[in-house]
Amino acid sequence: MKQIELQQDILGHNNSIGYENSAIFARKGIFVLNLMSSPGAGKTTLLERTIDMLKGKYQLGVIEGDIATSYDAERIGAHGVEVTQINTGGACHLDSSMIKKVLVNFDLDRLDMLIIENVGNLVCPAEFFLGEDAKAVILSVTEGEDKPLKYPLIFRLAKALVINKIDLLPYIDCNISRIIKDASSLNPALAIFETSCTGHTGLNTWKEWLEGKINEKRKNRLNA
Amino acid sequence: MKQIELQQDILGHNNSIGYENSAIFARKGIFVLNLMSSPGAGKTTLLERTIDMLKGKYQLGVIEGDIATSYDAERIGAHGVEVTQINTGGACHLDSSMIKKVLVNFDLDRLDMLIIENVGNLVCPAEFFLGEDAKAVILSVTEGEDKPLKYPLIFRLAKALVINKIDLLPYIDCNISRIIKDASSLNPALAIFETSCTGHTGLNTWKEWLEGKINEKRKNRLNA
Repeated sequence: MKQIELQQDILGHNNSIGYENSAIFARKGIFVLNLMSSPGAGKTTLLERTIDMLKGKYQLGVIEGDIATSYDAERIGAHGVEVTQINTGGACHLDSSMIKKVLVNFDLDRLDMLIIENVGNLVCPAEFFLGEDAKAVILSVTEGEDKPLKYPLIFRLAKALVINKIDLLPYIDCNISRIIKDASSLNPALAIFETSCTGHTGLNTWKEWLEGKINEKRKNRLNA
Repeated sequence: MKQIELQQDILGHNNSIGYENSAIFARKGIFVLNLMSSPGAGKTTLLERTIDMLKGKYQLGVIEGDIATSYDAERIGAHGVEVTQINTGGACHLDSSMIKKVLVNFDLDRLDMLIIENVGNLVCPAEFFLGEDAKAVILSVTEGEDKPLKYPLIFRLAKALVINKIDLLPYIDCNISRIIKDASSLNPALAIFETSCTGHTGLNTWKEWLEGKINEKRKNRLNA
């Protein structure tokens, strides 16, 4: 019981800073995406493809969350967008105060979209609201079709599910229809995309979904 | 600072029950393995292969840790060993008190090895000592070669690393030598195995490593 109350305190404190971040993003009209998955499902590669598709048209920023190393920030920086690396130094997720601290690194008046790549973990990051407009979860087909029901929270809270590495389907035993069925049963409003980021397939509908969200947020800024 | 002290309290409490479990396992001569990985790296399939190789010779028990569902316990139960499912109901790792509670489900006087399959998560489970003799981490080659340096703790604490799904190497971009080099630099004593659990390759050296550990623990029981 003590542990439960404590967890509520931690999450409550995180939420209140999350809402402060969210108010800044609303004022500036920045669409913010919190990108989550297991380690190695393809978050950084999806991000590279997404940047290449959108950077001519929109001003993009990226926050890279990792326990250690700055490999991902270096990969993203090579694509010509503003990027900041957060090293959690052991913590299994980003929290809203880490995000708040690094916002000074971005020119928020110019930004259209900020993508936050969370620490690779299908469990903990889902519990921490960072101020984002949408959570997206990536599931690689190599992880197996049973994952939505085994790790339900992240699939319940996400607005988008990217089923990635579909180029590997001929070589593995994975029932993609079951992923779609189970994820949709947990979250009927979930937008689902099937992609191969290395094969550059299925990315156009993902791009269109993001553009819809960016434009919606920009319109609200213009109206404000 | 308050958060750090708190975490030390939680880990300290977990450790003390972990040592109680460990004392039971020492008295009974049971070798206990804590099996950890990202979701979908192949823990349950490795466990199925391991059981099939060892069950004629040793008495085996399995504890399955999952946030939700009992799929894994059903898969393992079909292989004819004692199995208990723990559902953490949201928690991202098993802790030592969860293990203590389910030990009554096993005939500890007869058991030679107890394998604990942790929740799929490359971060948090490593911090929680359950009373095991050894932690083993599975890394699937589909997760990418940068994972040891990005998630260092689990590779530092493990006694064995199983690099799995090597049958997929022809179809992906993964430098397995870098995994071995980086993991060994974090942990020079790490025993490393390269396996394909679906292709039944590389499993013999893994089996021999486990048998060495089981026999060592049994010998100590006989001498006690």
